[in-house]
Amino acid sequence: MTETEESGYQLYYWPQIQGRGELVRLALEDAGAPYVDVARMGTDRGGGPEAIRRVLAGELGDGRHLAPPILQAGAVTVSQAACILDFLATRHPLLTDPGDRSRALQLQLTFSDFLGEAHDTHHPIAVSAYYEDQREEAKKRAAGFLADRWPKFLGYFETILRENKASKKEHLVGAGFSYVDLTAFQVLSGLAYAFPNAFNARRKEIPLLIALRDRVASRPRVAAYLGSTRRLPFSEHGIFRHYPELDLGGET
Amino acid sequence: MTETEESGYQLYYWPQIQGRGELVRLALEDAGAPYVDVARMGTDRGGGPEAIRRVLAGELGDGRHLAPPILQAGAVTVSQAACILDFLATRHPLLTDPGDRSRALQLQLTFSDFLGEAHDTHHPIAVSAYYEDQREEAKKRAAGFLADRWPKFLGYFETILRENKASKKEHLVGAGFSYVDLTAFQVLSGLAYAFPNAFNARRKEIPLLIALRDRVASRPRVAAYLGSTRRLPFSEHGIFRHYPELDLGGET
Repeated sequence: MTETEESGYQLYYWPQIQGRGELVRLALEDAGAPYVDVARMGTDRGGGPEAIRRVLAGELGDGRHLAPPILQAGAVTVSQAACILDFLATRHPLLTDPGDRSRALQLQLTFSDFLGEAHDTHHPIAVSAYYEDQREEAKKRAAGFLADRWPKFLGYFETILRENKASKKEHLVGAGFSYVDLTAFQVLSGLAYAFPNAFNARRKEIPLLIALRDRVASRPRVAAYLGSTRRLPFSEHGIFRHYPELDLGGET
Repeated sequence: MTETEESGYQLYYWPQIQGRGELVRLALEDAGAPYVDVARMGTDRGGGPEAIRRVLAGELGDGRHLAPPILQAGAVTVSQAACILDFLATRHPLLTDPGDRSRALQLQLTFSDFLGEAHDTHHPIAVSAYYEDQREEAKKRAAGFLADRWPKFLGYFETILRENKASKKEHLVGAGFSYVDLTAFQVLSGLAYAFPNAFNARRKEIPLLIALRDRVASRPRVAAYLGSTRRLPFSEHGIFRHYPELDLGGET
């Protein structure tokens, strides 16, 4: 039995970036679930990006996956971040009250849409091409993102919080904490990293979301994770990239 | 009690296009579930796009939704097409074997990603802007979509079929039919509409997907639906738009 197989979960995600895998890492950390971040181990221990390629090639046997993050739980493997979170919530009730499963998925998918649009600000033409080769198109896309999409999505989530009397405006889903709150934390942190000018200019529009972000960051297990080397930094290789020319007031 | 409230489900989606609402319409039709396509009714009967706007403004009361499709089932409302399908599958086992719920969601979300990329071929810069104002960027994005993303996604789903021995290569999820097969039908039909040259050039690469599409089209309730006025035509207002300049061999 290898080190990987002994653990509760094996997560397969690119070892250098937060990306969509971070939504799963946050949930595993907050749930206190034992897991191995396989690709972050050395290649001599079965890790590295090669581990992901083996899984994409079908090594685990339980159905093929198009892309990481991929979570292995015994004989079951699941991919697609929102699907993994939905799956984890059935095993860790702390991540979502079972009665709120559908509502949590729905809000998570809305965050997924927003994440995809945030990503496309720097890659509007082709994922496979360099940013530098689509920089002019990126400026146009980012301008529309900041002007239209940002207020549309964040305004929506702020309204969800404001109207959620059951949670005293403190949580997005139902009466209590859910993995969607973790995702809100990650998205707000990423936006503040990528678009600091826009974030500061608009922060007054989303007081409840900011308060939620800060509460999530102080949850004991989340705080321990954020202070550890397991938390990778934001960088210009992930979803949220800080290119000053794409931010509000950026050079044109 | 209004006409709407008497029915099993009320679907809220733009009345002129297939769009993401079509994934839900196909599932409701195939399940033989009674539903009212509310916005397609006259405004004098509570229909029209105004009905959608009322729901987005929170009229139904069960949590706000950012965008249609929105499905109402009694006191419950659900949005996000994949979430609605997951919800419907819990009530109509024909749409997914309960044991395959997570796998169906995962594949559905992968189709969602592909749908989003198909959409962005004609709107790479801003959803809110006209196609004509982002036509040059659209040509670039469509070229990358056809060269890289199309074979990646369709090759993946073809492999899923080929390796699915439990269904004799006839279904995407588990041993039998699921709503994911309906989505495969819709996506393949849309690609053939939007990119006829590319579709014909690459159809030999996906024999199992083509056979699946044809089998789905001949399911009795699906065939009845496709032959009815309830099925809206593809058009240049939906996800799949036929702009010859974006297709393989299109003018440059």
